[in-house]
Amino acid sequence: MRYELFYWPSIPGRGEFVRLALEQAGADYVDVARGSEADGLGVPALTRLLADESIATPPYAPPFLKAGKRIIAQTANILLYLGARHDLAPRGEAGRLWAHQLQLTVTDFLVHVHDTHHPIAGALYYEEQKPEARRRAAAFRKDRLPKFLHYFERVLRCNPHGSRYMVGNKLTYVDLSMFHLMAGLHYAFPRALAQLKPELPLLDALSRRVAALPRIAAYLKSKRRLAFNPHGIFRHYPELDAPAARKAARK
Amino acid sequence: MRYELFYWPSIPGRGEFVRLALEQAGADYVDVARGSEADGLGVPALTRLLADESIATPPYAPPFLKAGKRIIAQTANILLYLGARHDLAPRGEAGRLWAHQLQLTVTDFLVHVHDTHHPIAGALYYEEQKPEARRRAAAFRKDRLPKFLHYFERVLRCNPHGSRYMVGNKLTYVDLSMFHLMAGLHYAFPRALAQLKPELPLLDALSRRVAALPRIAAYLKSKRRLAFNPHGIFRHYPELDAPAARKAARK
Repeated sequence: MRYELFYWPSIPGRGEFVRLALEQAGADYVDVARGSEADGLGVPALTRLLADESIATPPYAPPFLKAGKRIIAQTANILLYLGARHDLAPRGEAGRLWAHQLQLTVTDFLVHVHDTHHPIAGALYYEEQKPEARRRAAAFRKDRLPKFLHYFERVLRCNPHGSRYMVGNKLTYVDLSMFHLMAGLHYAFPRALAQLKPELPLLDALSRRVAALPRIAAYLKSKRRLAFNPHGIFRHYPELDAPAARKAARK
Repeated sequence: MRYELFYWPSIPGRGEFVRLALEQAGADYVDVARGSEADGLGVPALTRLLADESIATPPYAPPFLKAGKRIIAQTANILLYLGARHDLAPRGEAGRLWAHQLQLTVTDFLVHVHDTHHPIAGALYYEEQKPEARRRAAAFRKDRLPKFLHYFERVLRCNPHGSRYMVGNKLTYVDLSMFHLMAGLHYAFPRALAQLKPELPLLDALSRRVAALPRIAAYLKSKRRLAFNPHGIFRHYPELDAPAARKAARK
């Protein structure tokens, strides 16, 4: 079966977490909105499906995945589905819920990252909410950024199967997501991340291992991988970056 | 098995979505942080567990559920677990993912609701971010509020099994969540919701049916139900409320 992934064509965004899982699985998929309109693909194919009232299970927003007749939306939900099919999640229910719980925590974190540059409204440009963005980004660097990253580091440290993987003793989609999260933060908040990195040795090592996985390494070099840019979730605005709060200064 | 629900004791918050499922299931549970410290309960029991580094699957934040030896966090993930056990979700995988997808969309919506009064940082008081809150709330009333509610209404309208339930032809945890969402909006944004309500007849009818379910009705009258108040996700600040954008004014 050829999967059809629907996501905006010009940013890695939330779609990237799904792409990484599809790539590591070696799955056959088409990135619909990046295809040609002449082939019935492109953004119109995406917006058509979003507006189609004949669909019994309509997505609220991209990304969504067509798998045969099924349409599955919400990044973490898509990964829950793919993880079970492509050996990218534990087999048992407890492990599967744990991996999913971590992915949902990634989802929460992404909202905080996004809202550093869009604290007022997604419908407005960054330039229309710059003072608010400065304030929100400062609070993010001081509080949420270290709190989430230390949490993920703790998950690796407390994994009873060792600190090579987020879940159990095998690669899961959560590891792929952690890699992308770290890559995105490195792009968007280089100064804040540089300051925090010494406190995140396990997360840093995990990111490097994921980047070196043969399929992921090949993907990262391919044209299928979209570069971070000033339109996505992870954006580099120097005025929003600064060293994170130092550990001693945090409670 | 007696479930242990861990959530902040003074607000309905995200914990309420779990409480409603437990109540409708007739499940045996203890609301840990609302218990007495003399019994080993109360907020210290919650914070102790959050800080316990011996836990292999630590939650990032409340709510979380202890079910025997398992600890499950993330509201939608808890409902995924409970739905399967208490007949509050479809039996098949496709239906289960669809219900979960809707719940994750509720999760997304709740962040938007919360951030109307906390657009800069959760660590600051509302009073420290009032101008930003006014701007964010105006954008919310114009864009996200109608978009999410019309989406949920559409889900009911497009349900091939009829418009009584969000998923299939039986009550699921998603219906319970829709009830609470509507109740919360009614409390927080009475003027905006009053304006939108005529466009949401199915959602309104569903909310009323859920409120009248015998177990839910009994729960709502009990002391176990916490009232909405100015500390939770749904807060009523008159300055953040106003009629929503009218349908004709929207694209």
